[in-house]
Amino acid sequence: MIYNFSAGPAALPAPVLRQAAEELPDWHGTGMSVMEMSHRGRDFIGIAESAEASLRDLMDVPDDYRVLFLQGGATGQFAAIPMNLAQADGAADYVITGMWGKRAHGEGSKYLDRVNVAAIASPSTYVPPETHWQLTPDADYVHITLNETIQGVRFDHVPSVAAPIVADVSSMILSEPINVSDFGVLYAGAQKNIGPSGLVVVIVREDLLGRARASTPQVWNWLENAKSGSMINTPPTFGWYIAGLVFRWVADQGGVPAMAETNRRKAAKLYDAIDQSGFYANPVAPASRSLMNVPFTVAQPDLESVFVAEARSAGLVNLEGHRAVGGMRASIYNAMPEAGVDALIDFMKEFESRHG
Amino acid sequence: MIYNFSAGPAALPAPVLRQAAEELPDWHGTGMSVMEMSHRGRDFIGIAESAEASLRDLMDVPDDYRVLFLQGGATGQFAAIPMNLAQADGAADYVITGMWGKRAHGEGSKYLDRVNVAAIASPSTYVPPETHWQLTPDADYVHITLNETIQGVRFDHVPSVAAPIVADVSSMILSEPINVSDFGVLYAGAQKNIGPSGLVVVIVREDLLGRARASTPQVWNWLENAKSGSMINTPPTFGWYIAGLVFRWVADQGGVPAMAETNRRKAAKLYDAIDQSGFYANPVAPASRSLMNVPFTVAQPDLESVFVAEARSAGLVNLEGHRAVGGMRASIYNAMPEAGVDALIDFMKEFESRHG
Repeated sequence: MIYNFSAGPAALPAPVLRQAAEELPDWHGTGMSVMEMSHRGRDFIGIAESAEASLRDLMDVPDDYRVLFLQGGATGQFAAIPMNLAQADGAADYVITGMWGKRAHGEGSKYLDRVNVAAIASPSTYVPPETHWQLTPDADYVHITLNETIQGVRFDHVPSVAAPIVADVSSMILSEPINVSDFGVLYAGAQKNIGPSGLVVVIVREDLLGRARASTPQVWNWLENAKSGSMINTPPTFGWYIAGLVFRWVADQGGVPAMAETNRRKAAKLYDAIDQSGFYANPVAPASRSLMNVPFTVAQPDLESVFVAEARSAGLVNLEGHRAVGGMRASIYNAMPEAGVDALIDFMKEFESRHG
Repeated sequence: MIYNFSAGPAALPAPVLRQAAEELPDWHGTGMSVMEMSHRGRDFIGIAESAEASLRDLMDVPDDYRVLFLQGGATGQFAAIPMNLAQADGAADYVITGMWGKRAHGEGSKYLDRVNVAAIASPSTYVPPETHWQLTPDADYVHITLNETIQGVRFDHVPSVAAPIVADVSSMILSEPINVSDFGVLYAGAQKNIGPSGLVVVIVREDLLGRARASTPQVWNWLENAKSGSMINTPPTFGWYIAGLVFRWVADQGGVPAMAETNRRKAAKLYDAIDQSGFYANPVAPASRSLMNVPFTVAQPDLESVFVAEARSAGLVNLEGHRAVGGMRASIYNAMPEAGVDALIDFMKEFESRHG
């Protein structure tokens, strides 16, 4: 028994993996693996539509939003967003609260003449207050990262701006309620709270479709994908299927509000353990702390590799911080049971008692 | 027991599916599914490197070629190819022998001022002779589709042209030997002879790296991916793993030459059955007939849906032709056992005896 704190690809719910293993060679008596099904056949269309319906239900997605299942990850969407929402002479505002926002901005800069950093948190330990944002009056969109996976910085409310908000929700989708209609576009790489890597979900308001510039690659053209049921080309069928199983598992747990209650409790006890220790530290402003990704350091930096190695031996794996920032990081997505967080806290106390 | 003639996603080798199912919940005692592994962790890096090594071995890929594992399918590469190989004022020649070449050309036209159709087969039933190609003297590349999945048209030799040849080998990779050094770039969507959909393999000669225009999306920049081991962002880890299992299975069968021998025998007996019937027909010139995709019609078009339905009842599934061309199509990739082709031929004879 291990607990996997990987930031992504990340732990999946055990019942989902059991079902996937059972069904892998022969899905529902068809004699075929889901991997072997034509994406245009009745069986896979059923799997795909049912996954979308579950997600819409879980997130209460309004009827005037389309849900797309695409390839290329969130990093692909960093390019697809400006292409789909603005012409080359358009403008966009980026609020940067960590490394993914920075990368979204960097990629966006390749496709827009005017890409403005409306605000940047430096160091990435807080969300800059909206009153200080310097917004472009005619921006085609404002990009934010609702939860920064690397620095563990989270927006605790949706900002109020005139332009449509485009939000990267990769590491927090389905972990707490999101009011979809506050946003123009939500997008999420699957490999944290949805399923395996290789799938990115895009939720886009219909009135924002049809703005794509002519040079948008067909596989990322949101309108064309909305029209074709995300089947401009062969979609990542197996990932889409696993996503459907995860969505049903979330529903079985009581849906997103129930997940959020557990997630808040998990995060609170981990931050408490860090704050009360004097040995561990998390640098993020309390109001901006992530519920999903908890980076932390130890008083003596040379103990970090010892911590990671001893934790691994204790069955607590993938606790290394991102190579860009170092330290440790515990990603505690939906699939991480509360018992895993308890085990980590126990280990931290025990480690401190020996090394502190 | 069924035989799945889907053009893609397509049948996978049974031993691969069995191993994947067994290993799905816990890979090699790690306590983790491959889907749950960090792509930067030792376990997955091992899986990824071993898959690449197997493919290099199977295809005898020269050292000065890089192998990339990307997302977005061949259709994504239709856009990535001009972006990586030419500036906007560059030129490319396309030889079009079916629908995929046409789509590659259409997408390429969005990114190059000069996109020339050097030759087009109309109808798509043959490969236009090279002596008739009208090539652009300063073309950055010549694009061909070595095997057209929909029309079943195959190049029986590699053309001799001055510019680097970029070839879509989606539906024939690993089915017969390819002399990699005849090409500048080979690319293949995985969902036919490699593994599940959501993965595209790109094999590119090193001297062609570094030509990408500034506006190339990072996830498709071949040079950046070559430098980062295809980990600019999170790769489709599970598909990459399955690809590795398939590569090992091909090696176990005796490698590509052994597969080719079986494939030639499978295709020959199916074409013979068609040609000798007077009831079934395949319109492709004999020298250009695909070893992998065999489209055919019946004398009375209203019998086609009857054929497909009765075949399905007999356990021979996914024999519908592509919706763009109608008729029937049997895709007989590596994973289709010779017994499956025999069963199809038996069914065809029996169907003819009842309806002919």
